[in-house]
Amino acid sequence: MNDRIKADTIIEAKWIIPVEPDNVASTDHAIVISNGIIKDILPVSEAKQRYNPQQTITLNNHALIPGLINLHTHAAMTLLRGLADDLPLMDWLNNHIWPIERQHVNSQFVYDGTKLACAEMIKGGITCFNDMYFFPESGVEAIIASGMRAAIGIVVIDFPTAYASDTDDYLAKGLALRDQYHQHPLLSFCFAPHAPYTVSDEAFNRILTYAEQLNTPIHIHLHESSDEIRINLESTGMRPIERLHQLGLVGPNMIAAHMVHLTEQEIKLVHDYGCNIAHCPSSNLKLANGFAPIPTFLNQGINVGLGTDGAASNNRLDMFEEMRQAALLAKATSGRADILPANQALKMATLNNANALGLGDKIGSLAIGKAADITAISFSDLDLTPCYNPISHLIYTASREHVSHVWVNGKMLLQDGELITLNSRELQHRSEFWYKRIKSTPI
Amino acid sequence: MNDRIKADTIIEAKWIIPVEPDNVASTDHAIVISNGIIKDILPVSEAKQRYNPQQTITLNNHALIPGLINLHTHAAMTLLRGLADDLPLMDWLNNHIWPIERQHVNSQFVYDGTKLACAEMIKGGITCFNDMYFFPESGVEAIIASGMRAAIGIVVIDFPTAYASDTDDYLAKGLALRDQYHQHPLLSFCFAPHAPYTVSDEAFNRILTYAEQLNTPIHIHLHESSDEIRINLESTGMRPIERLHQLGLVGPNMIAAHMVHLTEQEIKLVHDYGCNIAHCPSSNLKLANGFAPIPTFLNQGINVGLGTDGAASNNRLDMFEEMRQAALLAKATSGRADILPANQALKMATLNNANALGLGDKIGSLAIGKAADITAISFSDLDLTPCYNPISHLIYTASREHVSHVWVNGKMLLQDGELITLNSRELQHRSEFWYKRIKSTPI
Repeated sequence: MNDRIKADTIIEAKWIIPVEPDNVASTDHAIVISNGIIKDILPVSEAKQRYNPQQTITLNNHALIPGLINLHTHAAMTLLRGLADDLPLMDWLNNHIWPIERQHVNSQFVYDGTKLACAEMIKGGITCFNDMYFFPESGVEAIIASGMRAAIGIVVIDFPTAYASDTDDYLAKGLALRDQYHQHPLLSFCFAPHAPYTVSDEAFNRILTYAEQLNTPIHIHLHESSDEIRINLESTGMRPIERLHQLGLVGPNMIAAHMVHLTEQEIKLVHDYGCNIAHCPSSNLKLANGFAPIPTFLNQGINVGLGTDGAASNNRLDMFEEMRQAALLAKATSGRADILPANQALKMATLNNANALGLGDKIGSLAIGKAADITAISFSDLDLTPCYNPISHLIYTASREHVSHVWVNGKMLLQDGELITLNSRELQHRSEFWYKRIKSTPI
Repeated sequence: MNDRIKADTIIEAKWIIPVEPDNVASTDHAIVISNGIIKDILPVSEAKQRYNPQQTITLNNHALIPGLINLHTHAAMTLLRGLADDLPLMDWLNNHIWPIERQHVNSQFVYDGTKLACAEMIKGGITCFNDMYFFPESGVEAIIASGMRAAIGIVVIDFPTAYASDTDDYLAKGLALRDQYHQHPLLSFCFAPHAPYTVSDEAFNRILTYAEQLNTPIHIHLHESSDEIRINLESTGMRPIERLHQLGLVGPNMIAAHMVHLTEQEIKLVHDYGCNIAHCPSSNLKLANGFAPIPTFLNQGINVGLGTDGAASNNRLDMFEEMRQAALLAKATSGRADILPANQALKMATLNNANALGLGDKIGSLAIGKAADITAISFSDLDLTPCYNPISHLIYTASREHVSHVWVNGKMLLQDGELITLNSRELQHRSEFWYKRIKSTPI
């Protein structure tokens, strides 16, 4: 046995669903991990012969999938979850969310809210998220404590907040944070201009220059609501994406969140310039923004990923819900039940999201040489029996409560449904603190 | 203390959400139960003074709601869950579901499949369901074993099955079952002609006569797909609901499942004749049938309830998912985020469903004199914090995994998430048995 190759961890599972190759579930396979990297994927029997691991984890009734990625969220907004439901986008923003944010959002709010979000996401099998929120330096602290991977937004918005006073200040603070952390193994950065109606041409120009220099994605809300389009038309004479295109922002670095209302020409533009889309189906429904033309995007070969949006407009940071919702809505809007099958929904939530973030060589599939960002789903629950096809079960039958284990860079963050890096009781106390404070403030 | 009134059980909870009155969450209230009936609902402090219960159950961080009702399902089809996903309705029916049913469905299949469905539904907070499937006498055995309440379908379909040979046989068997059980405290009956394209005029005429004599609802698939409407137009020259109206079936006894495609006149007909609708949003999406015009139905004052459909087309018997889906889709199809607010979704899944089944005086809300069919939801999970409004949390944030306790007629069927009347391990074994048998048969 001495000639076996050393490894840190072997995870044996009933099924491994690697996403690359697509629509495959390998039975009784194992993943071999060393130094946080996937070293091998092979049948359990061969793994036993070939490797000598420090530990073996046997998950006899589980599927392993690439850790889910959340391509659009505002993590700290978990603290505003359900604060103002059943309201339209602009009313919700102008009369509820923004006034509350003006009164309460500070460094501590972002630290506590981001930690709560990380706990929810880890429990739900998410290993990486693309965040856009104020005080990202506090978000980063929470994320590092959680052990998750994240893309951090260098936020720009055209009004002063407790976080920053103007475009210069937003950019300076975001870039300083990037300087500090861009070599961190789990962190990457995106420029995050909030939306066309809240960012000036001048700010966009500066963001574009930096983004090209630093080869960094630009993460923005785009064509989310018909109000947004109307406001832009009134103020600039252009539809939002037309304006961004004139400014030179539409390209493979762009991650456009929502993208509900587009003309045929605009869809062609998105395709021709290789822009990425962060589809947020639950949020688009809840704020009555409508149905993004996902089957058309996919037909054109546009890279479409998935996100939850913030907990104030969803109200869950639940990628299982978004995968299911994306698959179901695409069928109903296209009138074709074979559109957006289960394997494609899973790919959107993993590999497509990794590619949008520029991290496709590192995460998004279970492949040799990629980081060991892995989610295990237990199929033991009665609600999941019988199981004729584990991939379709993941999308149409399973939920996040079936997630049992999560690893990021080979480090376990969730074990049998229990958080390892974060303390639930402490998070409950902090959530209760903010609830009381926010509840007692008149808007 | 001797002058306190005797009672069987008192359940104390953080919130009681009675549905009647609507949109109310009473804090720190208790429900008093005697002989399976709700005897009182009052503040905990008063309950302690006034009643002397045999047992008190304290649920400090929970909401109590009326047991959820599933207005349209085919319980035994849990055994076909996920068998043929990502396929259109008619392909799914003709080339997958019906051939498999022809080969496998028998009395034992229905018993095992219905028990598995009851387990899933109880765990998900459902206390009553409206079933339509073959061998209902075996379904009834399973339901009685589970302790659930149900409306049993007297099934009629225009082709012979292992269960019955022709209309006479279907009706005779269904009516004999009704004679045997119609006085059972937890069972009621519906005529269940499958759909316009599978039931003859003659059969409909006989069903109508019986339904009027016995004052029994008629539960039918109606205007589910555009194929159904086309087939009926070709064979009868009429759209399905027009034909049923000519036959005299459209009325307050009718529970029409799906109702996706309707003209304005047809909606007026549904309203004028007091027909009930079983909205099945997930199934309508999954089979690509589209979006039922629920906001229009509700505007007209039509009684709209909610159902899951069978597990072969959903693939969950999960009323939390259907409530959330109904609320979200209504917003997106109407373009108004204030349409179908959380309290209305909850009412659809409880009181509206009870009224559709003719059981509105007995179940569907937490009211004095009604049966103690009660579901408790725990709000302790991190994913539900903070909580600004428990009713909106139930719809937009909570899921069935947060259901902790279920009572039907005052009898506990679920305690801290554990089934009491059914044995999970036995259900797993039976599910595995059918999985192997079905998996090994070529279609």
